[in-house]
Amino acid sequence: MSTRRNSDPSTLIESARAGNRAALARLLTLVENGSREVSALAFKAPGHAYTVGITGAPGAGKSTLTDRLIVMAREKGFDGGDQVAVLAIDPSSPFSGGAILGDRVRMQNHALDEKVFIRSMATRGHLGGLAVAVPDAVRLLSAVGLPIVLVETVGVGQQEVEVAAATDTTIVVVNPGWGDAIQANKAGLLEIADLFVINKSDRPGARETKRDLELMLDLSAVGEWRPPIVETVASTGEGVEALWAAIGDHRSHLGAQGTLESLRRARLEREFHQILLARVEERIDRAVTLDRFAAVIATMMAGDLDPYEAADRLLAGMFTDGAGPSADA
Amino acid sequence: MSTRRNSDPSTLIESARAGNRAALARLLTLVENGSREVSALAFKAPGHAYTVGITGAPGAGKSTLTDRLIVMAREKGFDGGDQVAVLAIDPSSPFSGGAILGDRVRMQNHALDEKVFIRSMATRGHLGGLAVAVPDAVRLLSAVGLPIVLVETVGVGQQEVEVAAATDTTIVVVNPGWGDAIQANKAGLLEIADLFVINKSDRPGARETKRDLELMLDLSAVGEWRPPIVETVASTGEGVEALWAAIGDHRSHLGAQGTLESLRRARLEREFHQILLARVEERIDRAVTLDRFAAVIATMMAGDLDPYEAADRLLAGMFTDGAGPSADA
Repeated sequence: MSTRRNSDPSTLIESARAGNRAALARLLTLVENGSREVSALAFKAPGHAYTVGITGAPGAGKSTLTDRLIVMAREKGFDGGDQVAVLAIDPSSPFSGGAILGDRVRMQNHALDEKVFIRSMATRGHLGGLAVAVPDAVRLLSAVGLPIVLVETVGVGQQEVEVAAATDTTIVVVNPGWGDAIQANKAGLLEIADLFVINKSDRPGARETKRDLELMLDLSAVGEWRPPIVETVASTGEGVEALWAAIGDHRSHLGAQGTLESLRRARLEREFHQILLARVEERIDRAVTLDRFAAVIATMMAGDLDPYEAADRLLAGMFTDGAGPSADA
Repeated sequence: MSTRRNSDPSTLIESARAGNRAALARLLTLVENGSREVSALAFKAPGHAYTVGITGAPGAGKSTLTDRLIVMAREKGFDGGDQVAVLAIDPSSPFSGGAILGDRVRMQNHALDEKVFIRSMATRGHLGGLAVAVPDAVRLLSAVGLPIVLVETVGVGQQEVEVAAATDTTIVVVNPGWGDAIQANKAGLLEIADLFVINKSDRPGARETKRDLELMLDLSAVGEWRPPIVETVASTGEGVEALWAAIGDHRSHLGAQGTLESLRRARLEREFHQILLARVEERIDRAVTLDRFAAVIATMMAGDLDPYEAADRLLAGMFTDGAGPSADA
């Protein structure tokens, strides 16, 4: 058996499609490290995965809830598909322990189930960071035939919000007693949430939190879809069937309105913009030599030039501002 | 009194230097909104502020600790300066309520003290985001003569880590019982921490947490400065004098080693890099017209082109790759 032939991306994709999880794991590592070849192959064989994002502050119970949704996806599926992939996103920050630890717990629960593929994902090596790496990874999982992809993020920080917004249905998980936090952040919450979950709803304050969320929705200009509020106790499984049903409702809504396609187009636009910027960054790093950079820094340290002037001078002449050939040429 | 003359940035800076806090508040709003003029003026009159970053996960007690450090700065100062500025950074995320709420509490405590200037800062309008807006704001506070600037961030997410790393002394706040989180994130912690604080150290588990941190430091290649670990109970003030002394020790260490200057140079390099990228982003957005962008997206949606190829085609011809004049010309 030749290792070299097996590590060829198209061969790996064939194996992964046939159910080889080791091949899929290797492909995801390639994506994490920014493999353009794998991304391009996945892009040209898009698949039909439905993606569900789960986000919320640390401690909200996202991991346990995701664990329950894995079981729902296996039992009930969408369109008969009973496989499921989970991406647990590690925001690569000094305080991101939760995702990794939660992932380990789930790994044990589902280790023997070959229809469940779980992967925690770091994105340090990927050009464009999370905003590009996650869509790349999701597209790969879809391309190899997985029908449902759950994406779990720690919902703190702008990057993670971008990831959450990059799924078809985004679930924001809160807990009883979070009224003040909800109030302070309503704009951001309304921007990304398709569904609210009040997890640990057996604790005091669940009713008030629900009222706070309803009031927030009442006072805002929600579109044709008003995000439902589902109460769960993920640790016991209470409310999880209702949550799965609500996900299905949102999916039907998107399909019926024909908005799923335009949603995905808007996401591709955002992703493409990120890729454009990342590739420009590469070019700048190549073009601006160390010597040149050092000279500018020295002038700035002397207080003779501010960074904005310096940037403009350094970039002057580097651009032909739109005179290039168009991509469709 | 002419409002128009008073809103001129150089006039505002003169007023702020003379102690006019309303003028300083207006200048910071201009910086938040990305005013290049204010940033350039501040850059050319740098001042001598010493900056202290306070970061840590939500709930660690950062706001209360910062409140205590304000009192220390007022009583003990550095080099006789007894004024202090606080920037509470709002990471503009759906879950950032803490900073804003904490800020309100402090506002009440120090509202009558005209030597304390507190400001919570959002950065949505600023080119380059947090990584550029915060150094800009700090430079302004320094330029108007404030000797000490405390920068408080919610330490979750890569952006906030960048902010924390942009101060002279960075304090990472943890709590008893956070051993697992520390273990999972030691690389990130070691990268940014000049000082560790175990806050709420009257709670069970403080000793174990200290042991975990010491062990982490023992096993890592710390440089000439080994981050000290200070135990505090911010709510009572216990340990806060020791913390202030440790900050002074780190400041002396940087000065004695002559590293403060090279530290600041390295920070300016990072900041300049961000500004370069942000300005390139502006140019790209101008150069790539909506029609052109839409045509590329349509080709991609049809599966005929992957985003990486598309980016390369769109950028082809836009660059002269380094042929431009140098900034020192």
